[in-house]
Amino acid sequence: MARRRSSGPKRKPTAKRRPPAKRRPSRTKLVYDFAEGNKDMKYLLGGKGANLAEMTNLGLPVPPGFTITTDACRTYMDTKKLPPGLMAEVEDHLRRLERKMKRKLGDPADPLLVSVRSGSMFSMPGMMDTVLNLGMNDESVEGLTKQTNDERYAWDCYRRFIQMFGKIVVGISGEVFEDILDEAKLARSKKMKTKVSEVKDTDLTADDLRDVVDHFKNVFQKESKARFPQKPSMQLAMAIEAVFNSWNNRRAQEYRRREGIDDALGTAVNVQSMVFGNKGFDSGTGVAFTRDPGTGKRGVYGDYLANAQGEDVVAGIRTPEPLAALRKINRKAYDELDKIMKLLEKHYRDMCDIEFTIEQGALWMLQTRVGKRTPPAAVKLAVDMVEERLITKVEALGRVTPEQLDQLLHPQFDPNARAEVIAKGVNASPGAAVGKVVFDADTAVEWVEKGEKVVLVRDETNPDDVHGMYAAEGILTARGGKTSHAAVVARGAGKPCVVGADGIRIDYAGKKFESNGRTIKQGEVISVDGTTGTVVAGEVKLVEPKPSKEFTTLLGWADQARKLGIRANADTPEDAKRAREFGAEGIGLARTEHMFLGDRLPIVRRAILAETDAERDEALEDLRKLQRQDFVGIFKAMDGLPVTIRLLDPPLHEFLPDSKTLAVELERLRIAGDIARIDLIDRVAADRKKLLSAVERLEESNPMMGMRGCRLGLVLPGLYRMQVQAIMEAACELKRKGNKPGVEIMIPLVGIPKELEVLRAECEDVARRVMKETGVRVPYLVGTMIEVPRAALVAGEIAEDAEFFSFGTNDLTQMTYAFSRDDAEGKFLTEYLEKDILEVNPFESIDQTGVGRLVEIATREGRESNPKLKVGVCGEHGGDPTSIGFFAKVGLDYVSCSPFRVPIARLAAAQAALGSGEAASK
Amino acid sequence: MARRRSSGPKRKPTAKRRPPAKRRPSRTKLVYDFAEGNKDMKYLLGGKGANLAEMTNLGLPVPPGFTITTDACRTYMDTKKLPPGLMAEVEDHLRRLERKMKRKLGDPADPLLVSVRSGSMFSMPGMMDTVLNLGMNDESVEGLTKQTNDERYAWDCYRRFIQMFGKIVVGISGEVFEDILDEAKLARSKKMKTKVSEVKDTDLTADDLRDVVDHFKNVFQKESKARFPQKPSMQLAMAIEAVFNSWNNRRAQEYRRREGIDDALGTAVNVQSMVFGNKGFDSGTGVAFTRDPGTGKRGVYGDYLANAQGEDVVAGIRTPEPLAALRKINRKAYDELDKIMKLLEKHYRDMCDIEFTIEQGALWMLQTRVGKRTPPAAVKLAVDMVEERLITKVEALGRVTPEQLDQLLHPQFDPNARAEVIAKGVNASPGAAVGKVVFDADTAVEWVEKGEKVVLVRDETNPDDVHGMYAAEGILTARGGKTSHAAVVARGAGKPCVVGADGIRIDYAGKKFESNGRTIKQGEVISVDGTTGTVVAGEVKLVEPKPSKEFTTLLGWADQARKLGIRANADTPEDAKRAREFGAEGIGLARTEHMFLGDRLPIVRRAILAETDAERDEALEDLRKLQRQDFVGIFKAMDGLPVTIRLLDPPLHEFLPDSKTLAVELERLRIAGDIARIDLIDRVAADRKKLLSAVERLEESNPMMGMRGCRLGLVLPGLYRMQVQAIMEAACELKRKGNKPGVEIMIPLVGIPKELEVLRAECEDVARRVMKETGVRVPYLVGTMIEVPRAALVAGEIAEDAEFFSFGTNDLTQMTYAFSRDDAEGKFLTEYLEKDILEVNPFESIDQTGVGRLVEIATREGRESNPKLKVGVCGEHGGDPTSIGFFAKVGLDYVSCSPFRVPIARLAAAQAALGSGEAASK
Repeated sequence: MARRRSSGPKRKPTAKRRPPAKRRPSRTKLVYDFAEGNKDMKYLLGGKGANLAEMTNLGLPVPPGFTITTDACRTYMDTKKLPPGLMAEVEDHLRRLERKMKRKLGDPADPLLVSVRSGSMFSMPGMMDTVLNLGMNDESVEGLTKQTNDERYAWDCYRRFIQMFGKIVVGISGEVFEDILDEAKLARSKKMKTKVSEVKDTDLTADDLRDVVDHFKNVFQKESKARFPQKPSMQLAMAIEAVFNSWNNRRAQEYRRREGIDDALGTAVNVQSMVFGNKGFDSGTGVAFTRDPGTGKRGVYGDYLANAQGEDVVAGIRTPEPLAALRKINRKAYDELDKIMKLLEKHYRDMCDIEFTIEQGALWMLQTRVGKRTPPAAVKLAVDMVEERLITKVEALGRVTPEQLDQLLHPQFDPNARAEVIAKGVNASPGAAVGKVVFDADTAVEWVEKGEKVVLVRDETNPDDVHGMYAAEGILTARGGKTSHAAVVARGAGKPCVVGADGIRIDYAGKKFESNGRTIKQGEVISVDGTTGTVVAGEVKLVEPKPSKEFTTLLGWADQARKLGIRANADTPEDAKRAREFGAEGIGLARTEHMFLGDRLPIVRRAILAETDAERDEALEDLRKLQRQDFVGIFKAMDGLPVTIRLLDPPLHEFLPDSKTLAVELERLRIAGDIARIDLIDRVAADRKKLLSAVERLEESNPMMGMRGCRLGLVLPGLYRMQVQAIMEAACELKRKGNKPGVEIMIPLVGIPKELEVLRAECEDVARRVMKETGVRVPYLVGTMIEVPRAALVAGEIAEDAEFFSFGTNDLTQMTYAFSRDDAEGKFLTEYLEKDILEVNPFESIDQTGVGRLVEIATREGRESNPKLKVGVCGEHGGDPTSIGFFAKVGLDYVSCSPFRVPIARLAAAQAALGSGEAASK
Repeated sequence: MARRRSSGPKRKPTAKRRPPAKRRPSRTKLVYDFAEGNKDMKYLLGGKGANLAEMTNLGLPVPPGFTITTDACRTYMDTKKLPPGLMAEVEDHLRRLERKMKRKLGDPADPLLVSVRSGSMFSMPGMMDTVLNLGMNDESVEGLTKQTNDERYAWDCYRRFIQMFGKIVVGISGEVFEDILDEAKLARSKKMKTKVSEVKDTDLTADDLRDVVDHFKNVFQKESKARFPQKPSMQLAMAIEAVFNSWNNRRAQEYRRREGIDDALGTAVNVQSMVFGNKGFDSGTGVAFTRDPGTGKRGVYGDYLANAQGEDVVAGIRTPEPLAALRKINRKAYDELDKIMKLLEKHYRDMCDIEFTIEQGALWMLQTRVGKRTPPAAVKLAVDMVEERLITKVEALGRVTPEQLDQLLHPQFDPNARAEVIAKGVNASPGAAVGKVVFDADTAVEWVEKGEKVVLVRDETNPDDVHGMYAAEGILTARGGKTSHAAVVARGAGKPCVVGADGIRIDYAGKKFESNGRTIKQGEVISVDGTTGTVVAGEVKLVEPKPSKEFTTLLGWADQARKLGIRANADTPEDAKRAREFGAEGIGLARTEHMFLGDRLPIVRRAILAETDAERDEALEDLRKLQRQDFVGIFKAMDGLPVTIRLLDPPLHEFLPDSKTLAVELERLRIAGDIARIDLIDRVAADRKKLLSAVERLEESNPMMGMRGCRLGLVLPGLYRMQVQAIMEAACELKRKGNKPGVEIMIPLVGIPKELEVLRAECEDVARRVMKETGVRVPYLVGTMIEVPRAALVAGEIAEDAEFFSFGTNDLTQMTYAFSRDDAEGKFLTEYLEKDILEVNPFESIDQTGVGRLVEIATREGRESNPKLKVGVCGEHGGDPTSIGFFAKVGLDYVSCSPFRVPIARLAAAQAALGSGEAASK
């Protein structure tokens, strides 16, 4: 059934979802008739209540009822008592309901039955409790018999009510009741002379059920030390309290933590007259969507189950038929439903999800809401509805979340592949991965080094596992939520990850896990989909995302709407091309580190370890020739668009071997030399010793805050000059060939205006020389990263020498918090998120009060001193929708993000500009 | 001679000394008669010119003259030409001077001679050039003969003038002239029939000198391709230009760099009629101070040299007599001088330094200025002058610099000790040290480990030498200034250091150095005085400073004047006692790290490496008992005053061995195990491996920004609770005994308000429990360090849970600049200071624009949200006078510094409050 599919996007657990600013209007009214509310009152009436009210006011056939507000629930949570006056108000509304229904609760002649359902501001499907058939008692069961002319049915309702009430209101274990039912079936089987396993619930007669009810009442009294309440008003008060309490059951608390819903919201309670879909084959129940929630295709879509109640559908005991079945059974009801769905879609101006029941031919609407949808459906729906003139383009842009786009852009399971789902968990980091199961980080690394692909499976991860996580294709854990260590690290590393798959049981010693009755051993292949949280046995074919026509259309609208420019962080021509395909309008950050790695490492080491200026200059010269070609490639791929190239940033010891490894090796050589007394060993040892001492000289206690960035440029003569020369030579070469290289040279880690002043002068000097030598003029900009807190604080001065600022929000976050990301994410950050010391990981979504304040100061003061200053962001936050909303508010010129996030950023920027969608909501 | 003693304090090269704000009044007047200026016009007229003007206007006997302004010099530096109109103005003033003197420049009958002297805003003794006897030519030499009736004298004047003019104006080597003089002496020796070495300048006759002049003129023409200028106006223009040029000679530039004087100031030029102290024994010259500049004792003090010119005194060829000698020779002149000195001291309201000449009985004042003085003299003078009602207490407090106090507080050479001074250098880090000479860092460490005391002697230092510098008692380098690597590191480490002792020549291979003709070998003892820059062979007895009566008086006045409280950073009862003696009003930072070191390390390691909660708790319990006694000691020593105790801050791996050492050791054990196959070795290896993996788990890539400070408190259960319990138990124990412990608990590294909220609640919980158990109530405060940039940016929120803020400006500087101090000071910081990228080391004096802005924001916003918030500083900046001035301006409640700097801080705080002295000037 569609409702059970967790196909809708899980919202990201960023800042807690909270009620709108006006929290508590000074009202004391605690109960609303459905006719008194409307769809915008979700905070007070919950989603279900607000929508029932809306439908009631639209004149749709909604079983009458009323809603007890979330205010009442909040008071209950504070005081642990039902608010004074609540039950009086309830009684009052109940009387009105009874008048309207012309039936009375508990009436021995013609009783009214009601359902008591939870319903909070944000949907929390299945997390809280519901009591149905309330109003059944020893007297009304007779009335129901008369009313329905079906004694068996009436007694079955009664026993169901006691069972549900006992379980939910008093907390009696379901097994106790099942045992009694089983005994009744056993008795019946003897009478039927058949095997007990063949006896169905429906085989129990009215008399059987009467006995069952007696037993149930006894059990109830035994377990709860109180008689089963016969008074409907007592039943109602107890049920309301039970629903309030269910807001804080563990399941609901965990769901809210995972989804980032505020614990203080509370739930409303809907008391509604019951209608029955199980009164024969002219009755039934169904759920439907006004369009296909999986694909977004036009036309209603849903399931119908004749002679059943909603609970039967949810329980999945019987398989429902497609909605079309109803058309055959009851054309009138079907047509009415169809009309209502058209009306609802028009009214809500969105695809709606409804629940309905048909009682003896009559259609009743039980629920509606804007339907959840898969990411492709979200995009198609939005674009289609604009074409149908149902919504505007602006609205369409607000209808797709950036996260939905994100899910469209990762590799996914081939939808046509057959898959044996063995577990479901929390979708912690999007994308799909296939690999052999391993259970520890060392094995992961070992196997990967042998060329295998692996999926690391753990109960939960900790810092000791990080190397294995980086080596693995994907990660699966049995425990944890979206802020668990595994989730945080996986997202940081861009690895697909499913956490909290609590169905799996790992046997580390046996090197296997069990899930859903299936045992998977180390080395067997599984596939994990971090977008949906699905875990599958065996290899699932993965498909690369293909953007639909609607996707392109929607992003075209986004481009028209947004004010922020969108660039990509790309270091190579390949990345640049991909970014351009995704719609990037330039490169906001081209790192040059990789131009010093790979087969160039020996040359780089020559430069670093040079003992004379001449040696160093020669090595730099070799590098220049190679890097010039690197830059030609990047400029070509981005021809006509700006390319911000960051001069070398990392500390030099990153280009040398690790000193601990060297020290151990040296010790080994030393001992071998002592033992073997071979000259060669001594010579090798002497070489290693020299290298070790060079490495130790360059090592730093806190490299993040050491000799890196512009400090390299200032202290190492020739390094930046070499890079600038290579850049300008590449640009001049292309310009001569008719290309349009967009050169922007970015000096990293500036914190002192003079640093930029000196290095800018050097850049200009080199550029002038290259242009003079080549006879080609290429316009270029020189700017800086703002990534050190001081740079933001003295931005006014720095801007005097900068043509652009690019906020390096990763490092700015590290320095502002004094969080070394490497250390923090593995260690205390997880704990901080779990303990609510931090609401959001500041490396995922920008810290607006602290780091953001620096961004604001620097932008304002930088522009005050240099009104032409271009200002952008090139930290990872440039791809985070909430952060994009913030950057738009601050008034930056552009954001730059990884190529895959460019579409997301385009949408988020449009939403920010339009004041709609997630990027605008924080 | 007193002028040559570098007894005055060298000013600290902090921010460049610059002219007052109003730089260029729109004036075009380029020449001022002495009568037109006054002592406050130093920026325009230079120090010498301004004071000559002042004396002229006081009616003192000053040889008339005029001053060419620094404006003219600045124009000259910009345009490389004398400003248009300058020489016309000069001619004009010259005519007036001639009228006044009734003599004319170059007059063949009765010529006027003038001196042309430099004189800039800040004294730069001997750095620039002077031309004397200007106006001598072939005609005026005859006039001078007539005037003086001394032909020999006139020709000697002439040859001196050509020599000086040739050397200074045209740049002819002095040797060329000396050779000619030597030849003349040789000729004379033949005539005298004596050895040439016995012929003196004065033996040369007028005729000899006439020949010499001819030779000089020829040489001049040959070397300068131009005839020696006969026209006095031409001589004057050339001399003025030469003096302007001397502003930028290398010597002057280096002096300015060392003293932090702005290169753009330029020099004035004083043209003054010559008076002659060498016209016989009724003539003479001298320098004098109105009180003893060495001790501050009352009564004039100076030197006199009969029949000599100032240059003779400076050249040190003849030894002057005490000033009293003049009294015998010329009582009238002496009395007049004495009267003038009294007048000057009264007029300048300070001790003055004067130069005078007596020409044939008549006294002429050539210069005066406020005299430099030693630190003890500065203190005594200030206090005495208040007693004499010459100045106010407020003025007295402005007369002593905090640096002078600093010098009074370090160990110094015993002034009574005999010392063989072998070199002088730049006083880079105060205090004196004695030790055996070593020439490399490794030897330094090795010897120190054997129990020796060493002085590290290097040409200059670099990061590879740092471990040796820390091991050494003192450091001596042949090269470098106050911002050299050696100087920066030594000041940071508090080691006495003399740099740039350019007389020493090191022979590393021979392990010895030579200086002043003396050879010192490795292992020989030397003594260095970093306060004065003196290097002495052998051991000099050191004396601990003893504060004088005046010192105590002055600081008493400071305490009355200051608004900032002064606390000390002290971790032990001993430090606390010392701080209290120095006048500290509490402890602003008691670190607790040391309570986890020493013989407690094994317990700490047990806690860190514990495998169960019980193991850890037990270790923590052991620590608590020990630490409780630590706190008792500190509270007792500071009884009645506040003690801010910082809970544990450093990362835990600091308490474990280094992983590289462990890895190497493990490798050795592994190999030994393989070879020997002894079970014991394998067991030891297994132990080491376990320890290594624990260390590696705790190691961080950037520990400064890792798991430390409050993060430890939040993530490690029990640690902070243990410390708080120990603190409160100690406090309660003392309170019960009648003491008054001033408990302030400080949580370090807070950057997120919730961190403090949670830990504060824990502190309160523990405190309540302890007070309940002991039945004693002790008031206590809980606050936090503001040392992470974010803490400053969200200070308003943090202040809701803090009773005090203490700025940890060391870490705040590190994070704000992204400067890891350990790495930066050894690496790029020196280069930054040398290249003027940084004007000041931000770890020595607070960066007011960047870090200071955060301090301001946090103070303002913290107090807005919590008006009772106490705000202080406990970084090293708390002892830096300029920084103290800033903190006073921001309005902090107190600063806290190392005990030895408490007196300095008291004075600086007073100066800040009074708006006088260094702390107020930035």
